[in-house]
This record gives sequence, C-alpha cells and structure tokens, in this order.
Amino acid sequence: MPAQQRADARRNYARILAVAEEEVAAHGVDASLEQIARTAGVGSATVRRHFPTRRALLEAVSRKRIEALCLRARELANKADKPDKNDSRSALLEWLSDVVAYSASARGLAPVLAPEGAGPGSEQVSSCSALLEESAGPLLRRAARDGAVATSVTFADLMTLIAGIALATEHLPDPAVEADRLFRLAVAGLSPRS
Amino acid sequence: MPAQQRADARRNYARILAVAEEEVAAHGVDASLEQIARTAGVGSATVRRHFPTRRALLEAVSRKRIEALCLRARELANKADKPDKNDSRSALLEWLSDVVAYSASARGLAPVLAPEGAGPGSEQVSSCSALLEESAGPLLRRAARDGAVATSVTFADLMTLIAGIALATEHLPDPAVEADRLFRLAVAGLSPRS
Repeated sequence: MPAQQRADARRNYARILAVAEEEVAAHGVDASLEQIARTAGVGSATVRRHFPTRRALLEAVSRKRIEALCLRARELANKADKPDKNDSRSALLEWLSDVVAYSASARGLAPVLAPEGAGPGSEQVSSCSALLEESAGPLLRRAARDGAVATSVTFADLMTLIAGIALATEHLPDPAVEADRLFRLAVAGLSPRS
Repeated sequence: MPAQQRADARRNYARILAVAEEEVAAHGVDASLEQIARTAGVGSATVRRHFPTRRALLEAVSRKRIEALCLRARELANKADKPDKNDSRSALLEWLSDVVAYSASARGLAPVLAPEGAGPGSEQVSSCSALLEESAGPLLRRAARDGAVATSVTFADLMTLIAGIALATEHLPDPAVEADRLFRLAVAGLSPRS
C-alpha cells in the first residue's frame, strides 16, 4: 500500500474509533455500526475493514479508554511527586473519578467482552486490571503513605467497588451521575466516625 | 384436609423452606431440589407439591429473607429509641451488615427472579426495596438526625451501593467476606478527610 493510502487508512481508523467511543458511551454495546460510519463520514465497508466484528470494535474502544486511563494515571503520578497529603489525595481521587466515569459509560461492555460465561474474574478483565494497577499503583501508594487512604485498602478493593457501583447504577436513568454520587459517598464514608 | 394433615403440611413447608434457604445460600440458584428434599427428610414429590417450580422455591426463599430483614429493622429501631448517636449509628450499621450478608448469599438470585430482561429497576426488586425502606427508613432517619450519616444519604443510595458490592464480589472466591470488607471500607470512607 502506498504511503498516502496507509496514512488515509490510519486517519480513518482513528476517526472511526473516536466516533465509536462516543456512540458506545451513549448507547453501550448496542451502538449502531451504521451510525458510526455515517458520523465518521466513511462507508460501512470501511468500518468493517477496520473492525470485522462488533466485538472487535468494542474491544478497540475499551482498549483505547484503558490506555487513556493509564496515561492519565502516569501524568497525575508525576504531578503528585512532592510529598503533600492533599496533592496525593486529590491525584488519586481525580483518577478514580475518571475510572468511575469510564465504568459508567462502558455499561454493558464487560459481559460482551468477557469470554463466554466468565465473570469479573476473567482473563480479559484481569489483564485490563493489571494494566491499570501498573499505572495507577503509585497514586494509591503515595496516598496511603501520606495517610489519605488506609494502608489496608488495596488497588483491587478500589476497582471492585467501582465496578460494583457501575453495575448497580447501569439501569438507572442517569448512570454517570448516580455512579459519581455513590462513589463520592464511598470516598467520604457513609458513616465515617467510629 | 383434616387438621392433622394440614399441620403436617405446614411443618413440611417450613422445613423445606428452611433447608432451601441454606442450600440457596451455599449454591445460589443452582441449589439442588433433590438435595433439599433429602436434607428436609421428605420426598421430591412433597417438595414439588409445595414449590411446583424452581422459581417458586427461589421466590419463597427470597421473600423469607426480606421479611426477616424487615423484622430485624423494626427490632433495631425499637432498641435505638433513645437519642444517642452511637446507638442509632450502630443500629443502622448492624442492619446494613445483615443486608450485605443477605445480598452476598443471594448471589445469582436477582436475575432469575427479575422478569425477563428486567434490571435492578424491575417491579419485583422495587417491591422488595419498598418493604425494606418502610421497615428500615426509621433507622436511617435516626442516624441522620444524630449526625452519624449525612442527611443527603438516601435509603436508595445505601441499597444501590450494597447491590453493587454484591454484584462485584459474586465471582470472587469468598463473596461474603469480600462484600463485608468492601462495605466496611465504604462506611469508613475510602479517603474520608477533605
């Protein structure tokens, strides 16, 4: 393929993926491939060439979001370098809010991507979780070191709680708002004094 | 049916239901009807006479557990009558822990009982939730009045968070332990100071 054609193909791929991300956020796994093609200004055949199946498209959307979360975690970890409790707390909470927003917008995605019959413990989910932990682990460790989070709180605890919030709010009228609200309650504590 | 036979039937029903509750707690919706009959010391035909379908049995188990939670809420509300913050806080948390334990043990039950395709917002779930709110609402209002819970926290917030914790932990090796751990984190707050 000549250089110009390769460049066009890359641009198409990026444009389709960006449009797909918004469609999936709005409509979950039922996002319309035809609508994605129309909005991206390409033909259905072009969409199918890049993403032969709906699953391939959903996986690409999911991977892109996870990569963005990993990148954001590293940026925040660099910003939170100085040993200040408020800095490390707000860096962690800012990142976790992004994860909540992603989880709420990714509604219905996990069961489709997970291998047949597999639950949250499946390989696909574990591999996403490992990527996130590698990037965001430093944010949690700094917050714990600065006393903003109990040292007993694990990365898995945070991800499980967020996954639960996303699952329990996905059928509500405004999942993103409800998920954010519940996450803030859990951060502040339902009844923090003992 | 003569009085003696009616009394026998009632005893059988109660025994089968008690055994079913334990089997469902241990094995979820896949609880074996044959095992329930054996443990209860009755024939399979007797189980089928009382519970013609697996769904009927699961509904009866679920109803019994919800009724027990409602009763417990009313007992705790009576005990927490005097205006003491620690009393109203511990009464609410004790009851919520029971709900967490029930939700973790009821794994897999909600989707089976919910009407085809219905999510957590379904009528069946709403009716359980309304029963629980009627009984446990006073516990939350007292805890809020005593400053143990923010007044912005609704009963629905608590139920949604607990449902999420149950959903996110149901595939883990020890759902009850994990659900309890996450719930305690949410009560204490992931990062309570602002």
